[in-house]
Amino acid sequence: MEFSAQQIADFLGGVVQGDPSVKVHNFSKIEEGTSGTLSFLSNPKYCQYLYDSQSSIIIINKDFQLERETQGTLIRVDDAYKSFAVLLSLVEQSKPKKTGISPLAHISSTAVIGENAYIAPFVYIGDGVIIGNNVMLYAHASIDDNTQLGENVTLFSGVKIYNDCVIGSNCIFHSGVVIGSDGFGFAPTEDGSYQKIPQLGNVIIEDDVEIGANTTVDRATMGSTIIHKGVKLDNLIQIAHNVEVGMNTVMAAQSGIAGSSKVGKQCVVGGQVAINGHIQIADGTMLGGQTGVANSIKEPKQIYQGSPAIPISNYRRSSIAFKNLPDLHKIIKELQKQIKDLETRINSIS
Amino acid sequence: MEFSAQQIADFLGGVVQGDPSVKVHNFSKIEEGTSGTLSFLSNPKYCQYLYDSQSSIIIINKDFQLERETQGTLIRVDDAYKSFAVLLSLVEQSKPKKTGISPLAHISSTAVIGENAYIAPFVYIGDGVIIGNNVMLYAHASIDDNTQLGENVTLFSGVKIYNDCVIGSNCIFHSGVVIGSDGFGFAPTEDGSYQKIPQLGNVIIEDDVEIGANTTVDRATMGSTIIHKGVKLDNLIQIAHNVEVGMNTVMAAQSGIAGSSKVGKQCVVGGQVAINGHIQIADGTMLGGQTGVANSIKEPKQIYQGSPAIPISNYRRSSIAFKNLPDLHKIIKELQKQIKDLETRINSIS
Amino acid sequence: MEFSAQQIADFLGGVVQGDPSVKVHNFSKIEEGTSGTLSFLSNPKYCQYLYDSQSSIIIINKDFQLERETQGTLIRVDDAYKSFAVLLSLVEQSKPKKTGISPLAHISSTAVIGENAYIAPFVYIGDGVIIGNNVMLYAHASIDDNTQLGENVTLFSGVKIYNDCVIGSNCIFHSGVVIGSDGFGFAPTEDGSYQKIPQLGNVIIEDDVEIGANTTVDRATMGSTIIHKGVKLDNLIQIAHNVEVGMNTVMAAQSGIAGSSKVGKQCVVGGQVAINGHIQIADGTMLGGQTGVANSIKEPKQIYQGSPAIPISNYRRSSIAFKNLPDLHKIIKELQKQIKDLETRINSIS
Repeated sequence: MEFSAQQIADFLGGVVQGDPSVKVHNFSKIEEGTSGTLSFLSNPKYCQYLYDSQSSIIIINKDFQLERETQGTLIRVDDAYKSFAVLLSLVEQSKPKKTGISPLAHISSTAVIGENAYIAPFVYIGDGVIIGNNVMLYAHASIDDNTQLGENVTLFSGVKIYNDCVIGSNCIFHSGVVIGSDGFGFAPTEDGSYQKIPQLGNVIIEDDVEIGANTTVDRATMGSTIIHKGVKLDNLIQIAHNVEVGMNTVMAAQSGIAGSSKVGKQCVVGGQVAINGHIQIADGTMLGGQTGVANSIKEPKQIYQGSPAIPISNYRRSSIAFKNLPDLHKIIKELQKQIKDLETRINSIS
Repeated sequence: MEFSAQQIADFLGGVVQGDPSVKVHNFSKIEEGTSGTLSFLSNPKYCQYLYDSQSSIIIINKDFQLERETQGTLIRVDDAYKSFAVLLSLVEQSKPKKTGISPLAHISSTAVIGENAYIAPFVYIGDGVIIGNNVMLYAHASIDDNTQLGENVTLFSGVKIYNDCVIGSNCIFHSGVVIGSDGFGFAPTEDGSYQKIPQLGNVIIEDDVEIGANTTVDRATMGSTIIHKGVKLDNLIQIAHNVEVGMNTVMAAQSGIAGSSKVGKQCVVGGQVAINGHIQIADGTMLGGQTGVANSIKEPKQIYQGSPAIPISNYRRSSIAFKNLPDLHKIIKELQKQIKDLETRINSIS
Repeated sequence: MEFSAQQIADFLGGVVQGDPSVKVHNFSKIEEGTSGTLSFLSNPKYCQYLYDSQSSIIIINKDFQLERETQGTLIRVDDAYKSFAVLLSLVEQSKPKKTGISPLAHISSTAVIGENAYIAPFVYIGDGVIIGNNVMLYAHASIDDNTQLGENVTLFSGVKIYNDCVIGSNCIFHSGVVIGSDGFGFAPTEDGSYQKIPQLGNVIIEDDVEIGANTTVDRATMGSTIIHKGVKLDNLIQIAHNVEVGMNTVMAAQSGIAGSSKVGKQCVVGGQVAINGHIQIADGTMLGGQTGVANSIKEPKQIYQGSPAIPISNYRRSSIAFKNLPDLHKIIKELQKQIKDLETRINSIS
């Protein structure tokens, strides 16, 4: 399928700058643009690619100031990133969806499956499982006894959900996600060994949650580990037992939250961040990559970085100072020498 | 099932303080307590919840000093955490266990399976595998050729064990655990490419080991990667080839041990810790979260933190100093100015 | 099978020092050597084990200077590590290979499979998949629609490859690897929720790439995430959408590269390293363990460590200074006092 710049601009409510008849049939990144493709510019880091990009059409913000002419035709819109996302979604939605229940799947006779499901070969569905409409379960997904799934849930290949968990609607879990594994709870005994604390709780995941590949969410010791509505977790993240992650919080890959901590809503957590157990993180907190948070953060909407975490402006200044520490030692040696010299001189005077 | 405070106290050998006839039918965390549930208090961080908790019964240590009256009935015991764990275990053990071997499993004709096994659909068991009694293998578990499992082993859904490994009794591996994958061994060649070093060894895991979801344990180049008795590994941990982890050592999520290192017994390793290759960690070492250990630790029972790791008291003082580094620069500038002034004054005197 | 020192030396083009008739039937690490086994010495850390090792034969570099006599017979070669790898490979290659296509696998009627394949029970192969010759697919591997695999590819148990990806020849992916999961792309909306950006691109993995257990490689938003020829990735690594990893680059476990970054060729990345999004890393860069790279590295072949990353010699000096920071504070307090004293004295003089 091909669309002209004018057709796309009309659809997005944007304005064409350049040839309105130029056509595209695919998307590309602006720095890898080729003729016949559509790109967008939003991140200022990529402005350098705007003028010489070979993309036939480029979507940009309406207030973007050109420094010189561009090769491609521009479509100016209110928010280039969002408009581009709308176009990507259109294409995504036009793709054929898999349907049907494979006879090679194992579905317990006591499970209840909604309408219009796709269930691939080798999917395992245990006793008492309840699944809503329009669910897509790829090969080797496993849902153990009495777990519930809402509507429009997608479990990619190899997702594992333990028993008695509750998953909302419109959730997407990528391959290798594990939900409901036992929390890491052990009581030390006199002989130095550890006794397992049974993990009798479950995991509750609300609507509109997306979880990246190989991320793990442990069940609660008692009660529930809770991932609230709209949370987005990247790959290889660890969510420990009895943790609560607030609405619309996003976490980048390889971060972890230790047991019983509560992270507020609308937080943004960078990659490889560690959040200690039994603490609270205020709403809207932002944590830079590799940050280690040992204690509760009470003031909302603050930005922290470092291990241990400190306010980001402080972190930046301290990091520069860290780099210059060896010089500091030299400076101090010099000061000591100067003071010695002054002392000698004063001694000679008095 | 319901139990009264008196029944529970009698069972635990504890003493009731409050109404001995009050009944509970479930557990709850003290801060989330509701009527009809049983909680415990052990971590001092949660003392604030004791007095107003809605839990009907709360188990506490016998020497705990009350500041005022509690809403709930108390049961006083020697160790509240352990007593609570005992009750959780009772409930856990009263749950029905899955049994039976699914006809949808693939079991090699040369494999030997002990008595009373649960083997779910789509489990794969290779040639020459030997499995003890009372083993539970959930859907999509895979055990490759000639690997041995002891008694009472549980492999949750999607656990993968490569060939020729040896797993002890009473082990629990959570979903996504990988045991016996090739170690990361490559020899550089003249043209800049790397030649794979075959990994001909195996993994030996002793009795009573629990391994968290998506943790990986690589096989040895030759000989064995060894996880000793009673070790507990959390989720998303990396154990490299030829590593040895000592008895009863516990490691929190997302930590890693590089090739050929030996970690002693009774160590406690925090989350996101990195332990360098080819080093030794003494028995009883404790490593704070995100610590990076570059060199061997020889003295037992010491606590380290930071990257690179330093003794924890030193780390704490240095971290505070790090935070104040920008101020330090200002102080030194001021010192330089003062010395300059003194010099000028001395010059004018002499 | 047994081989004598003379036979092995002849095969390797090496020279026997000691008894040429002594025989071995297995390999061992030099520090764990037993009679009848063959070891090697390459890493200087292990020199201490050379003299008393119980290994019957030890391969060492021809220019190695002995301090005293060894128990075992030596074979001197140009490069002990490489010669040993050659022997390991011989043994590896002599092992019987699995073959045959299981009737318990699901293979789409529109998939094309090359000759001489091993396809285990419960493997899932989707529509339009094209697979080269000599491929080994272990149990629960999943290859979704239209993905292509080259020749001699091994997917261990539970590897998941999403649709439309392209995998080269001679690749080895270990259990739990996920290729082609959605990149972490979300656009914020006015109400605080996030809108998913469809991930329409794919993953391209070139020849000779090995990927460790539970590592994840996300598909591109558009275009391709690219892992170039000869790259070796360890376990639990995160490669985000639109990342490019250059030829022969090796990365240790638990490292991550954020979206759209380009890592050059022949780089060596330590464990738990974080590379920020939208940056470039020059060819031949080396990054120490736990390093955090926030900005592009433009000069090739430099070594960095720390978070944020600084040149390694600087990092080492600064780390020592960090450890001594509390002392520095004491020194500065002392300087302040000395200056005060001098001032008092000058005041009294003038």
